[in-house]
Amino acid sequence: MTGIITSGEKRLVIVSGRAHPELAAAVASELGTEVLSSTAYDFANGETYVRFNESVRGCDVFVMQSHGDRVNDWLMEQLIMVDALKRASAKRISVVAPFFPYARQDKKHLGREPISARLVADLYQTAGADRIMSVDLHTSQEQGFFDGPWDHLWAQPVLVEYIKSRVDPSMTTVVSPDAGRIRVAERWAHALGDTPLAFVHKTRDVTRPNESVANRVVGDVAGRSCVLVDDMIDTGGTIAKAVQVLLDQGAKDVIVAATHGVLSGPAVERLSSCGAREVVVTDTLPIPPSKRFGQLTILPIAPLLAQAIRAVFDDGSVTSLFESAGV
Amino acid sequence: MTGIITSGEKRLVIVSGRAHPELAAAVASELGTEVLSSTAYDFANGETYVRFNESVRGCDVFVMQSHGDRVNDWLMEQLIMVDALKRASAKRISVVAPFFPYARQDKKHLGREPISARLVADLYQTAGADRIMSVDLHTSQEQGFFDGPWDHLWAQPVLVEYIKSRVDPSMTTVVSPDAGRIRVAERWAHALGDTPLAFVHKTRDVTRPNESVANRVVGDVAGRSCVLVDDMIDTGGTIAKAVQVLLDQGAKDVIVAATHGVLSGPAVERLSSCGAREVVVTDTLPIPPSKRFGQLTILPIAPLLAQAIRAVFDDGSVTSLFESAGV
Amino acid sequence: MTGIITSGEKRLVIVSGRAHPELAAAVASELGTEVLSSTAYDFANGETYVRFNESVRGCDVFVMQSHGDRVNDWLMEQLIMVDALKRASAKRISVVAPFFPYARQDKKHLGREPISARLVADLYQTAGADRIMSVDLHTSQEQGFFDGPWDHLWAQPVLVEYIKSRVDPSMTTVVSPDAGRIRVAERWAHALGDTPLAFVHKTRDVTRPNESVANRVVGDVAGRSCVLVDDMIDTGGTIAKAVQVLLDQGAKDVIVAATHGVLSGPAVERLSSCGAREVVVTDTLPIPPSKRFGQLTILPIAPLLAQAIRAVFDDGSVTSLFESAGV
Amino acid sequence: MTGIITSGEKRLVIVSGRAHPELAAAVASELGTEVLSSTAYDFANGETYVRFNESVRGCDVFVMQSHGDRVNDWLMEQLIMVDALKRASAKRISVVAPFFPYARQDKKHLGREPISARLVADLYQTAGADRIMSVDLHTSQEQGFFDGPWDHLWAQPVLVEYIKSRVDPSMTTVVSPDAGRIRVAERWAHALGDTPLAFVHKTRDVTRPNESVANRVVGDVAGRSCVLVDDMIDTGGTIAKAVQVLLDQGAKDVIVAATHGVLSGPAVERLSSCGAREVVVTDTLPIPPSKRFGQLTILPIAPLLAQAIRAVFDDGSVTSLFESAGV
Amino acid sequence: MTGIITSGEKRLVIVSGRAHPELAAAVASELGTEVLSSTAYDFANGETYVRFNESVRGCDVFVMQSHGDRVNDWLMEQLIMVDALKRASAKRISVVAPFFPYARQDKKHLGREPISARLVADLYQTAGADRIMSVDLHTSQEQGFFDGPWDHLWAQPVLVEYIKSRVDPSMTTVVSPDAGRIRVAERWAHALGDTPLAFVHKTRDVTRPNESVANRVVGDVAGRSCVLVDDMIDTGGTIAKAVQVLLDQGAKDVIVAATHGVLSGPAVERLSSCGAREVVVTDTLPIPPSKRFGQLTILPIAPLLAQAIRAVFDDGSVTSLFESAGV
Amino acid sequence: MTGIITSGEKRLVIVSGRAHPELAAAVASELGTEVLSSTAYDFANGETYVRFNESVRGCDVFVMQSHGDRVNDWLMEQLIMVDALKRASAKRISVVAPFFPYARQDKKHLGREPISARLVADLYQTAGADRIMSVDLHTSQEQGFFDGPWDHLWAQPVLVEYIKSRVDPSMTTVVSPDAGRIRVAERWAHALGDTPLAFVHKTRDVTRPNESVANRVVGDVAGRSCVLVDDMIDTGGTIAKAVQVLLDQGAKDVIVAATHGVLSGPAVERLSSCGAREVVVTDTLPIPPSKRFGQLTILPIAPLLAQAIRAVFDDGSVTSLFESAGV
Repeated sequence: MTGIITSGEKRLVIVSGRAHPELAAAVASELGTEVLSSTAYDFANGETYVRFNESVRGCDVFVMQSHGDRVNDWLMEQLIMVDALKRASAKRISVVAPFFPYARQDKKHLGREPISARLVADLYQTAGADRIMSVDLHTSQEQGFFDGPWDHLWAQPVLVEYIKSRVDPSMTTVVSPDAGRIRVAERWAHALGDTPLAFVHKTRDVTRPNESVANRVVGDVAGRSCVLVDDMIDTGGTIAKAVQVLLDQGAKDVIVAATHGVLSGPAVERLSSCGAREVVVTDTLPIPPSKRFGQLTILPIAPLLAQAIRAVFDDGSVTSLFESAGV
Repeated sequence: MTGIITSGEKRLVIVSGRAHPELAAAVASELGTEVLSSTAYDFANGETYVRFNESVRGCDVFVMQSHGDRVNDWLMEQLIMVDALKRASAKRISVVAPFFPYARQDKKHLGREPISARLVADLYQTAGADRIMSVDLHTSQEQGFFDGPWDHLWAQPVLVEYIKSRVDPSMTTVVSPDAGRIRVAERWAHALGDTPLAFVHKTRDVTRPNESVANRVVGDVAGRSCVLVDDMIDTGGTIAKAVQVLLDQGAKDVIVAATHGVLSGPAVERLSSCGAREVVVTDTLPIPPSKRFGQLTILPIAPLLAQAIRAVFDDGSVTSLFESAGV
Repeated sequence: MTGIITSGEKRLVIVSGRAHPELAAAVASELGTEVLSSTAYDFANGETYVRFNESVRGCDVFVMQSHGDRVNDWLMEQLIMVDALKRASAKRISVVAPFFPYARQDKKHLGREPISARLVADLYQTAGADRIMSVDLHTSQEQGFFDGPWDHLWAQPVLVEYIKSRVDPSMTTVVSPDAGRIRVAERWAHALGDTPLAFVHKTRDVTRPNESVANRVVGDVAGRSCVLVDDMIDTGGTIAKAVQVLLDQGAKDVIVAATHGVLSGPAVERLSSCGAREVVVTDTLPIPPSKRFGQLTILPIAPLLAQAIRAVFDDGSVTSLFESAGV
Repeated sequence: MTGIITSGEKRLVIVSGRAHPELAAAVASELGTEVLSSTAYDFANGETYVRFNESVRGCDVFVMQSHGDRVNDWLMEQLIMVDALKRASAKRISVVAPFFPYARQDKKHLGREPISARLVADLYQTAGADRIMSVDLHTSQEQGFFDGPWDHLWAQPVLVEYIKSRVDPSMTTVVSPDAGRIRVAERWAHALGDTPLAFVHKTRDVTRPNESVANRVVGDVAGRSCVLVDDMIDTGGTIAKAVQVLLDQGAKDVIVAATHGVLSGPAVERLSSCGAREVVVTDTLPIPPSKRFGQLTILPIAPLLAQAIRAVFDDGSVTSLFESAGV
Repeated sequence: MTGIITSGEKRLVIVSGRAHPELAAAVASELGTEVLSSTAYDFANGETYVRFNESVRGCDVFVMQSHGDRVNDWLMEQLIMVDALKRASAKRISVVAPFFPYARQDKKHLGREPISARLVADLYQTAGADRIMSVDLHTSQEQGFFDGPWDHLWAQPVLVEYIKSRVDPSMTTVVSPDAGRIRVAERWAHALGDTPLAFVHKTRDVTRPNESVANRVVGDVAGRSCVLVDDMIDTGGTIAKAVQVLLDQGAKDVIVAATHGVLSGPAVERLSSCGAREVVVTDTLPIPPSKRFGQLTILPIAPLLAQAIRAVFDDGSVTSLFESAGV
Repeated sequence: MTGIITSGEKRLVIVSGRAHPELAAAVASELGTEVLSSTAYDFANGETYVRFNESVRGCDVFVMQSHGDRVNDWLMEQLIMVDALKRASAKRISVVAPFFPYARQDKKHLGREPISARLVADLYQTAGADRIMSVDLHTSQEQGFFDGPWDHLWAQPVLVEYIKSRVDPSMTTVVSPDAGRIRVAERWAHALGDTPLAFVHKTRDVTRPNESVANRVVGDVAGRSCVLVDDMIDTGGTIAKAVQVLLDQGAKDVIVAATHGVLSGPAVERLSSCGAREVVVTDTLPIPPSKRFGQLTILPIAPLLAQAIRAVFDDGSVTSLFESAGV
């Protein structure tokens, strides 16, 4: 048979944008390797430049970036990195975007609006991404925006394990901050050992259209520890009000648990003064010292990402990572 | 200037699959034209054959099909029609699928599942569709599954106009059959003149994990007419139970209002015997005589579709059709 | 060199739709493995649901389905399976469609017709298929409908080996049922040891335009065993008439040999009563007990499919499987 | 409504490659216009340069080229023209290839062969072609190689009209040069008024495997005028032999009629000396003086092409051009 | 003929991003219309939101944006606008990017670099852009990065017309700031009436490798007015040094003329103090008051853009806009 | 785990078109293998036929072709080879085009021109190429024309190594034949040990618009050996004139060094009589005996190509091949 035959091997490489290098380093460390060296900077007019300092030909590359603020800059940087990898003959390119950019604009609320989350998925594909990995998408339907595999990780096991060490489940109630998140709260209640469930909702729309709005708690919270759960905390308004109404209703104390700590604008002030005993988030997004406050606890997401990346590289099952957690 | 110059004109054409020809005929009639003649039949082994009997070259064609049962057959027929139109030089091809097929499989609930709704949108695009029109999608995020315009119509104005003639708004409560549909019910309450709102939910998961499941009504319904609203009625189980619990809670009477009357399996028996005063649906799907029962009212969706098709053809605004309705 | 390096390996997996699970099981057995477990069912309104019960990440997957009846359902099921595999990170997806659906609609016979065979090839590609494998396509040109490899297998060696045990080649004539299939019959005659050749044709169009139509046999059949060959038997009309005219012309006996036993509508009655000594087909399509009759012989196609699948997996030559057979 | 509104108009433009400018000029003339001026030449190393000398922005452009010899050069020139039109903002680009290049390589006859006809269709699409127009394709299945409209014209009406003036139909037989073209001959017989039909075939493979090959005529030709029909005449070998065997069998005389006069290699010598009374082709391909001989008649194809181009421009039906001809 | 027929008309619409609304307003004004109203803002975490306040269905839309600073934000905004237009059924979408973003990263200078200009062209196409319009690209080869029409405008006529009023051509020399721009300077010299030409280059690399670098002027500048031309002024370093060396060589005075006034970082200080008599740019990019200095003249580019947009809308020739200018 | 698992391996294969089989053979020999056997010929009308005589399923194939003359034929042959490889299940297909066809038409110099180099890159992609390898592209921007990796090799190290043995660097000046190539000459000067640099340019445009054109040399050449460098020699006009002016200016002798020896038209005569001491090219293009003359030296490019192909196959770095050469 004409030709040259060799046995194949494959190489996993982690590269990182500039938004959250600590997370990439932590993931690489969990995997027993290092982030591949790259050069990146902005020109005076804001254009981004990227170059990898080592060959990536034939590699299985994971391109990490976090999109907490300066979203457009970090997104462009990541797209440019994917383009450079494609032209440098990487074998497979996986975008790792723990907090998927523009996830909230996932439909046309009004005529002549964009569907930006679909646009972002298309941009990744155009740049050359073969697959996407993210944590706790805003709506699961967004996986259908990408024409390829999208590994969707759940941070809940990470959060639940910590919360279990902080409360007595038999005296705890899981609370959803609004009616739209009850299904998430259900999974939490199950994971904590079938605790009771409650949720907060605005009462005007439900039964008394002409009265002023008020938050009401449905479910038993008096004398109990409340775990208020959500997928992200942005400006913190809804969460802070929910904490207050729970305390007003006699809750013993309140722990807030959310995957993504966006913490933009007045979030720090609201959360630190709302009366919550503790606010727990993961580090899918960088949280600078200026956003840290006494009640804030930040759990590392790197072990989960590293496990999933290793499973993708080894062609193992990512779903199975969540089976014991009942997700 | 070399060449031949003529002024342009454009031609709107309606073609129809075999699933629901009455609806296509009604739409064409509203538009002042007729459905273009076509030939379609199945071979002995189940393969579908289609041919148009008149030239469609340069036309703006709307391909109507309903997907109530035998979904795969009607979908393939519609895809084959689109392929034939593309090869016959139609200028623009719009798929009209009032009840979008596979709309409920819009995300991966578990590992290794398909996202069939995205697949269907891709199949339409592959066959040659330029745009999609549908009524009351299961989740609005699905519009992001198609890489082009998707005109999303709301049947609510049609239903609301009829319901207003059947109840006294001041003595009416709008009811959602579960927690996940409260936002739809809110729009109904607003459209009926800010009526009160209520919803039904299963209580076990909320506060008493170890007791048996029971439906509970949140909101005031005693002595009031209830309008129970949903996007579709499939086997009718959830709706029938909701009617019963409303009547148990002292509702004066219950009218069920839904856009899509799938009415599969035991739906007719359940709905006709559940105690509802009236069950109102539109004819987005064909409802054969065997599925009609005393309390069933079927409203024509053709005027709405015809308006939207005309707006698309004339490059008018489809969104504006719904503005006065407050959707 | 930064990164993690491991040596590669690859994994072959067989999955199957519900149309013909016995064939998939037989193929897997030939390969020394089992069909990967999956869950599939139809909803009340006819929509299909599929899920694989084991990880397929990184696998070389062959998706088997047969398209004998309910073609649209089995096609959609296979497309949905391919979509699920794509999103579950299968490395390569091969559609195995022994009887390619819609193969007969391979050109526009009239204006405004579809080319459904091209449409089906496009739908497979859109869903995520990397390659196609099929047996005895209607016209070889259809391989050009797919933008990728299409392994085209020939069932002739399977059929010929059996026929050799049933007739004395020196007393046999190979017969084509119409003028369009003479080239296939030529290959058969060669494979049986350069037997004589004959064919049946309608005489009106050839030389006597004003007389009634009659089938005529060209070639010597009197006193000889005839092997009547075709690619498929659908309703059996042409084949049954050809058997009768051969017997009328003094043939000693007639064996019918065809790859695909569609056997729709009146096929069983026609074939069982036409006077053929034996009707031989392969099991590319499922043949339920109700379609089996005394003269019918069904040869297993699984060994051929298994050989080809193994060659694809091992990057061997599929063409070479047919070289000794002179195809 | 914000914006500027004007009424639309559209402009038809004919451009031409250098292979057969006379045909393009004739088509333009039939349409009452001229071929748009362009500049084209080859560089010393064989690269082709093209530029249009007038704006084509917004035009409906038909790019004519013939592919009789130097096929690769003329194909590249046409691709380059399409690219230039795309970048010059032509509104719609139709490739007119009366004799479609590489039409005979339409399937894999052996493993590891290309399907060049599909490749060519894909190259046209990549360059920017929206549609294809050709005359008498080798196999109709090739229309499925293009993902868009393919207007397939039939030269038969042109040829038949002329032949009718040359023979007495009641004393004429239509003859196919081999078994594979009988269906074309049937259409001819019908168009000439249901004349008798005959065909030539090689006898060894049919009934006497061990004897030498000989051509045999099936059908009555003795004392009759024979019209020998085919889609193209390349080197003329098959046709010349068929003429001789027909004359040997007592045919009164033979007229050869074919659409495409490729006439490569020894064709002129063979045809001029084979005994045919007349050889009739159209000018889909250029026929230089050196290829013209006494018995050759060349019919103009321009009127047919012009009619079809006008119908495409006007969104009329191309199929209807052939209805009266019974094609 | 079945269907509804109307005569067509078309509508031109200008929409604008937030980077340089004054330019869009000026273009619209030149065209006798207004910029279509839209809503755009950034969320707290930097994500961009856009919506059009009027229907754009069926329109020929030009999406204007300037990319002078915050390039990534303005690019994403423009992409999101294109996506919204596509989903709102705009008929044709033209991106107007007078200063094409990332134009300077148009090749791989080193291994593992991106080609960001190609990436940006692909992103526009993915979002839904049909065509691109820009002014004075960095290299003309970039037009090949887009698979469609790219209208490339030249600002030179605008600049030349002004410069002619400022200098005496017979006493003027056109100067290129480095060897790579000599061809641009040639066109300038021709447009000003075949003035002499000169250029500045660094001498070390040319003839004396071991000496220190020094700028040298080739050509006669002593006692003459120099027009120093370039495509853009970014940080101004090269230009300022060239002005100084020209003055050192005895130039009477120096006018700097460039299309794009990026003016980032120290540009204002450098240019205002370098000794140039005047610095002339166009307003392809917004120049805020803080970047304006005494010697700066800003010429309006809106008339040129408006002419080109009108020509595109009317299917006229854009190239012809530059013919008289000899570009 | 269900399925069959084997360890992976990969196979490198070289195939070659007919333009320059000696080069392919030399590359294969360098790699220790042979060119895979194939069958290729032209039909009488110019159509090209190709078939590979051995299985290429799963292989990493490099398709070599040179494009020196008959460019369109060799391009089509290569496209057809790529198509055949794609359909024969090659795993990865790399086009090796040492002299990229149509590289000089890389932009629109005038309205309504094509960008043929982009078209060619698109045609390769359409046929099925995954990557491109070429030597010394006309402009580096062309790498952005392909949506994938493009390995761009530099012949300079090959040429420099030879030239070093022919001249005394301390008495040598590197010369560019025009202003547009100075940057290439800079790299040469550096590679030869920081020799002085010079270039030839036409003086009319620079300082004396009304005088006749004349070539002028900038830099010191008197009494020195000149190395005149360019990327290709086509008709040789510019090079021959540059040699003469260098000799006129007192150069001791002149060696011409270029990568691609196109040598079309009068090149041989011009170069052999211009006075150059030696003309050095590589064999990226075939140079038949009729084009060889006394002063011509042809260096083998095969070792460089073989190294790069091996690096691609082994996933090594191609860039690093040029690092020591300072390219």
